[in-house]
Amino acid sequence: MFKRDLFSEEVASYLSEDEWLVIEDGYDAQKNLAYESIFGLASGYMGNRASHEEGDVRSSLPANYIHGVFDKSEAFQRELCNTPDWTKLKMYYKRDPIGIESGQSLDEYIRVLDMKKGFLAKHYVTTAHDGRKTKVELIKFLSRGHNNLGLLRIYLTPINYQGLFEFENIIDASVTNFMDFPRFRVKHLETLEVEPIDEFGASILSQTRDFKLPIATTTAVAVYDMAGNNILKSRKFRRYGEVACEFIDAQVKEKQTIMIEKYASIRTGRDSDAVVYDASHDLRQALERGFDNEFEVHQAEYKRLWTRADLVIKGDDKLQHALRFNIFQLMSTPSMDDDRTNIGAKLMHGEEYGGHAFWDTELFILPFFTYVFPGVAKNLVTYRYNLIDKARENAKLNGYAGAKYPWESADTGDEECPAWTVEPDGSCYRCYVADYEHHVTAAVAFGVDRYYRFTKDEAFLKEKGLEIIVETARFWISRLEYSATKDHYEINQVTGPDEWHEPVDNNAYTNHLAKWNIRKALEYLTRYKQDESQVYYALLKKIQMTESEYEQWYAISEKIYLNNTSGLIEQFEGYFDLKHAIIHEWDANNMPLLPDALKGIKRSQTCILKQADVVMLMFLLENEFDKETQKVNYEYYEQRTLHRSSLSPSIHCMMGLRVGKEQHAYDYLERSAYVDLYDNQGNTREGIHAASTGGTWQSVTLGYGGMSVDREGILTFNPRLPKHWDYIEFSIIWEQVPLHIRITHEDVIIKAESIDKKITYKVNEKTYKI
Amino acid sequence: MFKRDLFSEEVASYLSEDEWLVIEDGYDAQKNLAYESIFGLASGYMGNRASHEEGDVRSSLPANYIHGVFDKSEAFQRELCNTPDWTKLKMYYKRDPIGIESGQSLDEYIRVLDMKKGFLAKHYVTTAHDGRKTKVELIKFLSRGHNNLGLLRIYLTPINYQGLFEFENIIDASVTNFMDFPRFRVKHLETLEVEPIDEFGASILSQTRDFKLPIATTTAVAVYDMAGNNILKSRKFRRYGEVACEFIDAQVKEKQTIMIEKYASIRTGRDSDAVVYDASHDLRQALERGFDNEFEVHQAEYKRLWTRADLVIKGDDKLQHALRFNIFQLMSTPSMDDDRTNIGAKLMHGEEYGGHAFWDTELFILPFFTYVFPGVAKNLVTYRYNLIDKARENAKLNGYAGAKYPWESADTGDEECPAWTVEPDGSCYRCYVADYEHHVTAAVAFGVDRYYRFTKDEAFLKEKGLEIIVETARFWISRLEYSATKDHYEINQVTGPDEWHEPVDNNAYTNHLAKWNIRKALEYLTRYKQDESQVYYALLKKIQMTESEYEQWYAISEKIYLNNTSGLIEQFEGYFDLKHAIIHEWDANNMPLLPDALKGIKRSQTCILKQADVVMLMFLLENEFDKETQKVNYEYYEQRTLHRSSLSPSIHCMMGLRVGKEQHAYDYLERSAYVDLYDNQGNTREGIHAASTGGTWQSVTLGYGGMSVDREGILTFNPRLPKHWDYIEFSIIWEQVPLHIRITHEDVIIKAESIDKKITYKVNEKTYKI
Repeated sequence: MFKRDLFSEEVASYLSEDEWLVIEDGYDAQKNLAYESIFGLASGYMGNRASHEEGDVRSSLPANYIHGVFDKSEAFQRELCNTPDWTKLKMYYKRDPIGIESGQSLDEYIRVLDMKKGFLAKHYVTTAHDGRKTKVELIKFLSRGHNNLGLLRIYLTPINYQGLFEFENIIDASVTNFMDFPRFRVKHLETLEVEPIDEFGASILSQTRDFKLPIATTTAVAVYDMAGNNILKSRKFRRYGEVACEFIDAQVKEKQTIMIEKYASIRTGRDSDAVVYDASHDLRQALERGFDNEFEVHQAEYKRLWTRADLVIKGDDKLQHALRFNIFQLMSTPSMDDDRTNIGAKLMHGEEYGGHAFWDTELFILPFFTYVFPGVAKNLVTYRYNLIDKARENAKLNGYAGAKYPWESADTGDEECPAWTVEPDGSCYRCYVADYEHHVTAAVAFGVDRYYRFTKDEAFLKEKGLEIIVETARFWISRLEYSATKDHYEINQVTGPDEWHEPVDNNAYTNHLAKWNIRKALEYLTRYKQDESQVYYALLKKIQMTESEYEQWYAISEKIYLNNTSGLIEQFEGYFDLKHAIIHEWDANNMPLLPDALKGIKRSQTCILKQADVVMLMFLLENEFDKETQKVNYEYYEQRTLHRSSLSPSIHCMMGLRVGKEQHAYDYLERSAYVDLYDNQGNTREGIHAASTGGTWQSVTLGYGGMSVDREGILTFNPRLPKHWDYIEFSIIWEQVPLHIRITHEDVIIKAESIDKKITYKVNEKTYKI
Repeated sequence: MFKRDLFSEEVASYLSEDEWLVIEDGYDAQKNLAYESIFGLASGYMGNRASHEEGDVRSSLPANYIHGVFDKSEAFQRELCNTPDWTKLKMYYKRDPIGIESGQSLDEYIRVLDMKKGFLAKHYVTTAHDGRKTKVELIKFLSRGHNNLGLLRIYLTPINYQGLFEFENIIDASVTNFMDFPRFRVKHLETLEVEPIDEFGASILSQTRDFKLPIATTTAVAVYDMAGNNILKSRKFRRYGEVACEFIDAQVKEKQTIMIEKYASIRTGRDSDAVVYDASHDLRQALERGFDNEFEVHQAEYKRLWTRADLVIKGDDKLQHALRFNIFQLMSTPSMDDDRTNIGAKLMHGEEYGGHAFWDTELFILPFFTYVFPGVAKNLVTYRYNLIDKARENAKLNGYAGAKYPWESADTGDEECPAWTVEPDGSCYRCYVADYEHHVTAAVAFGVDRYYRFTKDEAFLKEKGLEIIVETARFWISRLEYSATKDHYEINQVTGPDEWHEPVDNNAYTNHLAKWNIRKALEYLTRYKQDESQVYYALLKKIQMTESEYEQWYAISEKIYLNNTSGLIEQFEGYFDLKHAIIHEWDANNMPLLPDALKGIKRSQTCILKQADVVMLMFLLENEFDKETQKVNYEYYEQRTLHRSSLSPSIHCMMGLRVGKEQHAYDYLERSAYVDLYDNQGNTREGIHAASTGGTWQSVTLGYGGMSVDREGILTFNPRLPKHWDYIEFSIIWEQVPLHIRITHEDVIIKAESIDKKITYKVNEKTYKI
């Protein structure tokens, strides 16, 4: 039996087989907030948490985030705004609300995310205090056909009674960010108008408080019997402060099912000059097309997305399922056409970290898009280019040259990571991250380079990428400090990925990446000077750079202090002198525990790491370290890392594989893949760990699939499948050619969709061509 | 053990003995709405439902009604507005709300209304999902010292943990009327300003939507340890749309108790020109006086009120308790100094009937105030005088002369009972009550006459009362229709108190009262012409009446058709021809059931009554009907009355006593006394039945005490105490002399507080003097 058989035939007919479903089987109010994230939907235009549409649920954080809609107001940083909640459709029988938590008992309950088709479905039967039994089912999706639209359809069946039902189709603009966190709760929108739309809907016009960006949220309902007859007679518009409401009713007979369809259309000043007019227009057209029509277009689009993005792991059903969940949430989130938005650290599923882009984008998320949806990857790297002026300002502001990218980036490119934060206990905390954590700037350059190497998008490179790589290199040059006594360049007072040691001098990760960045700039400058000198000279002119400025860069980069390049590498100067002890205990979730010997000692004075800098460094700059060095360092640092960042496990999976720690690697893969699906860190309620979704995909394709690009720029595979996997299968777009790849224990089978162009690739050192 | 011993010593020290408490022992979410009414507080300025102050309760209708603040907007009548909720004080430990329904379990719970001192207290212990146990206690009162102030103090004790607690002091202006009744939900206020008050509080300025009446709601908090040290360090003001919030926090140690005091001050354009300024001023002064000081003044005032209003029933503890509850809610409600407001049919405890004054005021409520608080009674009758111009307009509008009082009266005196109402099923219903139910006009005159006869307030009579009685008589004269064939005057197309027969011709109740009203006008006109002719002529001039206009009134009144004055009186013409059957079954609550023989027949075509007109008539005009007639009619109609109005039982109690049906009478007394205290009709959630509170008081004093004023205006007593009562004891103010009355089975003992004036009274036909 499939889970869909628990639904009515009507709803079951839409649902995929179980392997494509994420299932909430039975309702637990304590888990509702986590499921709001897990079942969050995103359309590339907006993201919507899965708060129960009928309302009346005690613990719920309804949220609708829209790409590029940020505001600061009283918050200590510019945040992705919670915008009006358009999802609510309240149901009543004689004033008594019908909903998950409203009755005397909830007799049946199942909710599923159909990842294949990109929609939510639920089914429940509730018994009211007076014994009335009601069956409710729902389908909800954010249309990928018209991604500013959200639609839902409720099937309502009174099982043992009948009469007049009342409904409220609601837009609630009273929402805030951090609704359940009083200290941090901020209302980012002002409500300007709460109005009916002609005779068929309701709208709210809001604006952000800082920039006055207008946002129109519009909605309308339709009611049908199961024969498809419109049974909606009249609607009454009501204004309740910041809430717009359409009141409607319908007579329903015992055992009869009716469908209440809700349509919502959203527009902001980012995409429209007349937001209410345009949103209403879209709404009217959606109503005319109808739910089924919109749903079909939506499903066709998800089919297309999955054709590109699916990753089959034959022989490991649980992991297969989790992989699809990670891919589903990751691929659904970014805009397909907006190069002024990025992807926040919690995707569009929660507001922690303000919806800001971190280095997570370039190092964890971008690979997936680079390999699978290069159009999106192009938007993500272009986002950095669009904000390069702010990065230049940011460098200047801090006394440096070139472009220094902000640790946290929102819509303006300003540094959003505040110098002072408020802690949950109300104390003010001087936050040094923006001051010291400079490696993000190298990550941006790294992302651009990887994007280019994989896509061979020459236009992007010469128009935008080159400038980023040169300007970031320029930053590093200005950031270096020459030590005359030691005759080398140092980078002092920085923080590496491991934020528990802050600040430090000569962080191995930062120094290596800075060197890489400078060398990469020189490489591209040289190439363009030779091959396309007009591009080269135009760039120099634009960024006011003379050849003499960079002629010493190579020599300087040679003298950047790297404490070691083989053997054990010290994470930073003085790390080996800290109080050392290795991890010897793990908790019930297999999470490492602080060694007893280090308890009571200030974290920064111990060797224990939040996440491993050196391991990350070797993962990124694989070719610069020999196998033995990688092994020595992995083994050393793995014993000292608590993985208190969701960025850590996937890197340890991939590095574990490289150094032959298969069981380690698989444990880390699971940790990464399941973090939100099973709420393993207990914080899924705050959103989906974006870096984990991308890191998980990388772990399978780059890690187990052993896919990489070698020094010569050749696509190479060194697969290391676990014994219990039969094969993995996925698609990428390599140098603009779609490739379908199946990796078994014996073979790597690659099929190109187009054969206009020869593809060369290597498998375990042997070269092949197709 | 007293119930107060379940509280901490601190709170227990404030609480009265059990007989003065209404107790909610253990929490049942299903009963919460009823307790919000039962525990509602009123200050004479405003009324406040007892919604739990910590919020986070699923089923709750927070409400704060202010005398005279009405608005119509989309409602079908002008309603007493729900104004901003100033009561909320939310508490959190690490984001986790602390409240009645918030935890894993509620281990202890008791809430009491201390009727003696006029405050609410609660105590509970809740265990959170993580095992934290918290004790919370609360005291809340609406100050009678400064009746625009509401205060509450929470005692918070973490039992097995400690740390930082966070609090939100909230004013919520997003409230509506009929919050849980989507079809009727209306928002009557617009929010104009949500602002901090200097550095110490928060305010919201609202206004009614129709008349733009400004309302300022202000609040501030103070936090103390139990040694009285101020431990409030800082407060942050936050604006969330229509919600004002002061965010504060405090460190609390394990087992330590802290006190969080909330002060609120409200002002409207009815009592201030600068509402926010004045409310803030009052708030600041209250803060300076402090909680204990304000509480002491408040308690002293309740002591004074009870000295006047207590009614002791020795030998019947349950009824004693209920009587005090009825008196407490009734006496707390009206303004002591505002003669432009009245008392709504649900007191200030719910919004059903729009907070409108009905004939309930004059016939059910006014006697209590006339006898106990004549100052309030004077305001209530003056309210009618203040609106007499509108009553004259209303008469003219309907084609009549004189003054026709509206069936439902709010602030303007317009008829608020709409011609069309919307039913819960959404259908529109033509409501004929305002068209036909004319007897309210006689009730207004009756109230004025009773007020005068009891108080001998000559000034009121000549300045206001006389005009009301004459103008209402003038209405009746114009309302009469002469039948030449029968040579009598008829009143056709009316509805009596029994609304199930609508309209009817020559309703006995209406015809008798019309006649009484005309005769009373003639009596006063004659008297003033003789005794104070300048008053008489001034009146005639003012109301443009000539002596010739009324010279035929007596003759006309003689010819008003009264179908019978002894023997069985037909309720209206044709009543005896209806389908008849007598009640022979009662439900589990002892409520009569429709006889089987009448089922399926249109109500108006059967003899079955909602409430008995003829019984009511005999109760009011006792002296016009002999004992036998009263008995015959009581017995006849009692068998045909379903008592579907809360006005019915008390009248049947008193009439039952008169005709010797003691057991009947006692059953009816209980029905009246317990209706809300035990939510016997299941609708206490909508408010307190105002008529029952007054009717219950009348049942004991006028019914069992047999107190009345005879034809000669002498205070008389014909006591009929039930055997199990030892005595009753109460106070009245008779002709401005406070009298203390104890009625035993043997005696009526009267003590006068002042002996400047001789008092004559009769007991069982014998005359006494003091």
